[in-house]
Amino acid sequence: MRMLTEQNIEDLALGAAVLGTGGGGDPYIGKLMAQQAIRQYGPVRLLSLDEIDDDALVVPAAMMGAPTVMIEKIPNGCEIMAAFNGLANYIGKPISAVMSIEAGGLNSVMPISVAASTNLPLVDCDGMGRAFPEIQMVTHTIFGVSATPMAMADEKGNTALINTINNRWTERLARSITIDMGGSALIALYAATGRQLKELAVRGTMTYAEEIGRTVRRARAQESNPVEAIRQVTKGFLAFKGKIVDLQRRTEGGFARGAAYLDGLDEYTGSKLEINFQNEHLVAIRDGKYVVTVPDLIAILDVDTAEPITTEALRYGFRVAVIGIPCDARWRTPKGLELVGPRYFGYDVDYVPVEQLLG
Amino acid sequence: MRMLTEQNIEDLALGAAVLGTGGGGDPYIGKLMAQQAIRQYGPVRLLSLDEIDDDALVVPAAMMGAPTVMIEKIPNGCEIMAAFNGLANYIGKPISAVMSIEAGGLNSVMPISVAASTNLPLVDCDGMGRAFPEIQMVTHTIFGVSATPMAMADEKGNTALINTINNRWTERLARSITIDMGGSALIALYAATGRQLKELAVRGTMTYAEEIGRTVRRARAQESNPVEAIRQVTKGFLAFKGKIVDLQRRTEGGFARGAAYLDGLDEYTGSKLEINFQNEHLVAIRDGKYVVTVPDLIAILDVDTAEPITTEALRYGFRVAVIGIPCDARWRTPKGLELVGPRYFGYDVDYVPVEQLLG
Repeated sequence: MRMLTEQNIEDLALGAAVLGTGGGGDPYIGKLMAQQAIRQYGPVRLLSLDEIDDDALVVPAAMMGAPTVMIEKIPNGCEIMAAFNGLANYIGKPISAVMSIEAGGLNSVMPISVAASTNLPLVDCDGMGRAFPEIQMVTHTIFGVSATPMAMADEKGNTALINTINNRWTERLARSITIDMGGSALIALYAATGRQLKELAVRGTMTYAEEIGRTVRRARAQESNPVEAIRQVTKGFLAFKGKIVDLQRRTEGGFARGAAYLDGLDEYTGSKLEINFQNEHLVAIRDGKYVVTVPDLIAILDVDTAEPITTEALRYGFRVAVIGIPCDARWRTPKGLELVGPRYFGYDVDYVPVEQLLG
Repeated sequence: MRMLTEQNIEDLALGAAVLGTGGGGDPYIGKLMAQQAIRQYGPVRLLSLDEIDDDALVVPAAMMGAPTVMIEKIPNGCEIMAAFNGLANYIGKPISAVMSIEAGGLNSVMPISVAASTNLPLVDCDGMGRAFPEIQMVTHTIFGVSATPMAMADEKGNTALINTINNRWTERLARSITIDMGGSALIALYAATGRQLKELAVRGTMTYAEEIGRTVRRARAQESNPVEAIRQVTKGFLAFKGKIVDLQRRTEGGFARGAAYLDGLDEYTGSKLEINFQNEHLVAIRDGKYVVTVPDLIAILDVDTAEPITTEALRYGFRVAVIGIPCDARWRTPKGLELVGPRYFGYDVDYVPVEQLLG
């Protein structure tokens, strides 16, 4: 057990945004929300998975929707408590801890606000080891844990509680409700026991995110290369350096979808890179060849500061480095690839691990 | 108090389909469901509003969605209990009785199945005195009673429970969920006390529907004119007799929308009638002039048998009589017309009572 303070949040939000692979929400908003909650309620206890009782009930809390909408409709902090308490009341058993469902600038730290204001501990894990766009895309689904009961809330005061026959149906109903709620909603779902999480969760995600953030901060302070620092700490591979020369972006079906087109710089001069996204970056295609695909992570970083750039923040002219990072091993199993492999997202290509493509 | 038996259902479903003004679901499916429930569980007690305790909690149950879908996706009887029990469990207080939210072939008798299988009485009232297409279009809304908590269920086993800030938001969220659930869903909502219902509900709807059905049945047996019998018992006005010569129909946004075009017969030879609908018939325009508009009722009846024809059953070549029937007085108030007047549905015309237009 250790305490998360305001100072930890800065590193954690930055590192989680790297793991967010373009999605998972804006780290600046997430950071402000979590820091404000800690100022108001005090530091949050961070427990490792092994410190959780087998029978303890752990509930993730998150924001759902298109990141393009989230940055215009900032949560006020009440909606997430409405969702969390709505689920807790429905379950009718005591909740022992909170967790992040995904690594991402906003969604890794949103549960810190909930933990602070409920005085519950946060568990050092998540359900992806990165961010993914759809509800069913968590290791919980691989291990047969239901997304529902799921509680949802908006900033107006509307709430919904759904129970579905499988996690794909949860995605379908929750996505429509999110669109109605104005394109984003606060959610609580995937309640699981300590015993289940010890088997299925991605361990140590919060600590890992914090480590990435700290590495970047130190590299910046020492005027060493922060992009290279991220590559090393994540055991990633440099896929490209270039300038964004074109962007296509649309908010469609409740997602931010589109593509970024880059012209190469430095050793990549003369090369081109295309990155497609659905909230998160899905594939990176260099000169016509796939160089990173889901479920491996694609981080777009400012080429000088290594600040991770979310899909909604991409702009023409940005000079960026693109890093491919190996995903959690569970995503590379047949069950994992069925859920989040490139074919699920409509790409006619088999998954090849990034270390084979770029190693 | 009186008992509703299998024999009552036949008349009730037919009369309710007249009041359904084209919507409210298929009377044949409704009749079979209610009769089967009574065969299985025994007759249902029908109580007048005055027989209900002021503090008794009364819950309506209904089917929601496009009638064009409902006739292809017939409820199996379990979904409506999932919705009803879901709401009852959420409320956490004993439910004293069941009621119909609207008059309509299916939705007037659906609560009879629920009453039979729960052994609860049915209250002789409804929230419209007719059928309307949207959730907020009930006298409950005029009197400030909330539609939520609202429970929903589909035939696959998915359920949802929503709480909204007003009844228009209930419509919005529930409509999207209904579309996701496959275009129709079973619902329980508008829980109200006996005290509230004594003020707001339309009284005696079940008995009135049964009386209309009985009148038609007797007129058919006596070979008198059943259309004229309906006109008399409903204090309605003959708006047209004609043949359907064109139909436009689309299932859109969760509703069956469209128009029927009629060429006149008998005394209407040379005239034309257009009827627009959104689940229910909304306006009847004869030779360019509005002759009946919402909230007054527009019943399309087989010209010989007076069988009411729902919007999804309209077919080219049908010979029909069109009757305009005065609506409940509450719909003619400013608050009522704001909810269900012709302007709400996009018609640039003030409401004029049918007795002034056709009297």
